[in-house]
Amino acid sequence: MCALRDEIHEQPTVLERMLERQEAVREIARHVATWGRRGPGLRQVLLAARGTSDNAGQYGKYLLGAANGLPVALAAPSLYTLYGAPPRLAGALVLGISQSGASPDICAVIEDARRQGAPTVVLTNAPDSPLARVAEHVVDLGAGPERSVAATKTYTAELLALALLSAHLAEDAERLEALRAVPEAVAAALALDAPIAQRAERYLYMPHCAVVGRGYNYATALEIALKVKELTYVGATPYSSADFRHGPIAVVDRAYPVILVAPSGAVYADVVDLLDALREREAEIIVLSDREEALAAARTALRLPGGVPEWLSPIVAAIPGQLLAYHLALAKDLDPERPRGLRKVTETR
Amino acid sequence: MCALRDEIHEQPTVLERMLERQEAVREIARHVATWGRRGPGLRQVLLAARGTSDNAGQYGKYLLGAANGLPVALAAPSLYTLYGAPPRLAGALVLGISQSGASPDICAVIEDARRQGAPTVVLTNAPDSPLARVAEHVVDLGAGPERSVAATKTYTAELLALALLSAHLAEDAERLEALRAVPEAVAAALALDAPIAQRAERYLYMPHCAVVGRGYNYATALEIALKVKELTYVGATPYSSADFRHGPIAVVDRAYPVILVAPSGAVYADVVDLLDALREREAEIIVLSDREEALAAARTALRLPGGVPEWLSPIVAAIPGQLLAYHLALAKDLDPERPRGLRKVTETR
Repeated sequence: MCALRDEIHEQPTVLERMLERQEAVREIARHVATWGRRGPGLRQVLLAARGTSDNAGQYGKYLLGAANGLPVALAAPSLYTLYGAPPRLAGALVLGISQSGASPDICAVIEDARRQGAPTVVLTNAPDSPLARVAEHVVDLGAGPERSVAATKTYTAELLALALLSAHLAEDAERLEALRAVPEAVAAALALDAPIAQRAERYLYMPHCAVVGRGYNYATALEIALKVKELTYVGATPYSSADFRHGPIAVVDRAYPVILVAPSGAVYADVVDLLDALREREAEIIVLSDREEALAAARTALRLPGGVPEWLSPIVAAIPGQLLAYHLALAKDLDPERPRGLRKVTETR
Repeated sequence: MCALRDEIHEQPTVLERMLERQEAVREIARHVATWGRRGPGLRQVLLAARGTSDNAGQYGKYLLGAANGLPVALAAPSLYTLYGAPPRLAGALVLGISQSGASPDICAVIEDARRQGAPTVVLTNAPDSPLARVAEHVVDLGAGPERSVAATKTYTAELLALALLSAHLAEDAERLEALRAVPEAVAAALALDAPIAQRAERYLYMPHCAVVGRGYNYATALEIALKVKELTYVGATPYSSADFRHGPIAVVDRAYPVILVAPSGAVYADVVDLLDALREREAEIIVLSDREEALAAARTALRLPGGVPEWLSPIVAAIPGQLLAYHLALAKDLDPERPRGLRKVTETR
């Protein structure tokens, strides 16, 4: 058995464990809310992350925007580490997300926030890391050791930690209840393992591909594209469906593979609206959805479990992407444990 | 003569004209500054744009962060148009950028900002457009009609408008003086037209490529990749050098083309630090730089004019990218005026 495959299949357990220990997140949310009732108030979120964690941050941008009414800026770490010109913070909660907690540039954003007196929360799988030590509050992802270079269980754990933080900040009982269904839905999505293993060879020689999502699932498009690149070296490019129309769709012609992330929800219609243009270009259409209409239009249909609200669907929709990247790597006789030239911890400044 | 080539070569004139009419931007900056001295103050910027204009927005994110100390959030238009859950704004300046001023989702962000009482500034080449009508303040790019689907002169005009707005907001005399050199530097960069025309055939059969920049020139990487996709249908993917190390570098092997945007400045060392890893993988290295060291490492060296401060270098560094995309389209016998399946105005919701 390979560590990556184990880690992919551990996700329901990791997520269940995080739900059981959510009291720690509730406590942090209370601290932040108390701070937000004083002074300038809680007016914005600054979010710092890299790589896979940055994709989780994109989910946070939509979630904290829609459910908590907060404008979210993704930090530009080079302003801290290279330009020496960090923005002034007022009324800002600063969130750091990092599996390893080791990236110096993310630490620099959190350190500066503490100097400026902003509340800081770090989501990390390494509660003894440099990043955890500089933060005021730490959410331990508790995903257990992640040995593979490609992050899987820490990604979905980061998404769930953000969902918990958002729901506790809003003190939204309905959302907190909805979270309980996530581990089972992820387990259901893992049933795609065998069908995707069978299907992966179809894509053995694809030279590149596009991955398209929007809203909450823009993060899913980003993360699937990153997994495909890391594990299979195929140049996968992620797009929001809105941006895709604004130019990049020009690259699509006959047999060009386009992966559409289209679970039920407010942006579903916008994503599937691309189907006509893609069919006209005779693209190879791969669909991740719980909806018959979208699945029926696909050459490869990957059925997501139903009954998951859109704001939680990225945790579930990430799974077939992980499985596709993993099985495509195997089909290519690549070692999914050791992508060429990558290390588990990348220290960027 | 083709309209696209004309428009590329009009850029020095368009930029000069904007500098001559900068009093209007100064006035807007004064209004915003006055507003910023009242109430919650000016604490953040929310920026809404799509496509090429969104790339200009990325420049704005670094510039308004570094020079004006403002955290900048790129708006998620779907929160307005599809989720019906716009974030609460307090102490936020809201900036819309759109060549055509016709995109309903960007209008929705500005309309909501006005409802919430936030100051709104729109940069557009269409001062009679729906977007201009909903905004409190309008900066007319005055670039003249842009007939080509691929935006060129409106992109650099958007960058210069942002640079003017930033410098006037900061009332920074030194920066205002530095701006005067931009049109001439852009004219100097246009001298690359002939050498790039000669060189383009080398890349006729490249299946895809990566474009890497960081900081102010992350925008340049995004914009060059978009021009290459729109005009040549080559799957070009943009990266920050920091993110590139975090996984995507795995796709690079022998002969894989990587375009490095590496003008002098604070992030130069970080970008050229990739050269070793790229040479080890025997990548095809294309460099845009004013520095000998970086140019010497390239298989294709595109020399940028020197003497441009880093914060203005994206206006100049965009030029060789436009020329490369244009000449590669010609080499491929594609019509640069009519990229397949694109329209000049894309209305996204």
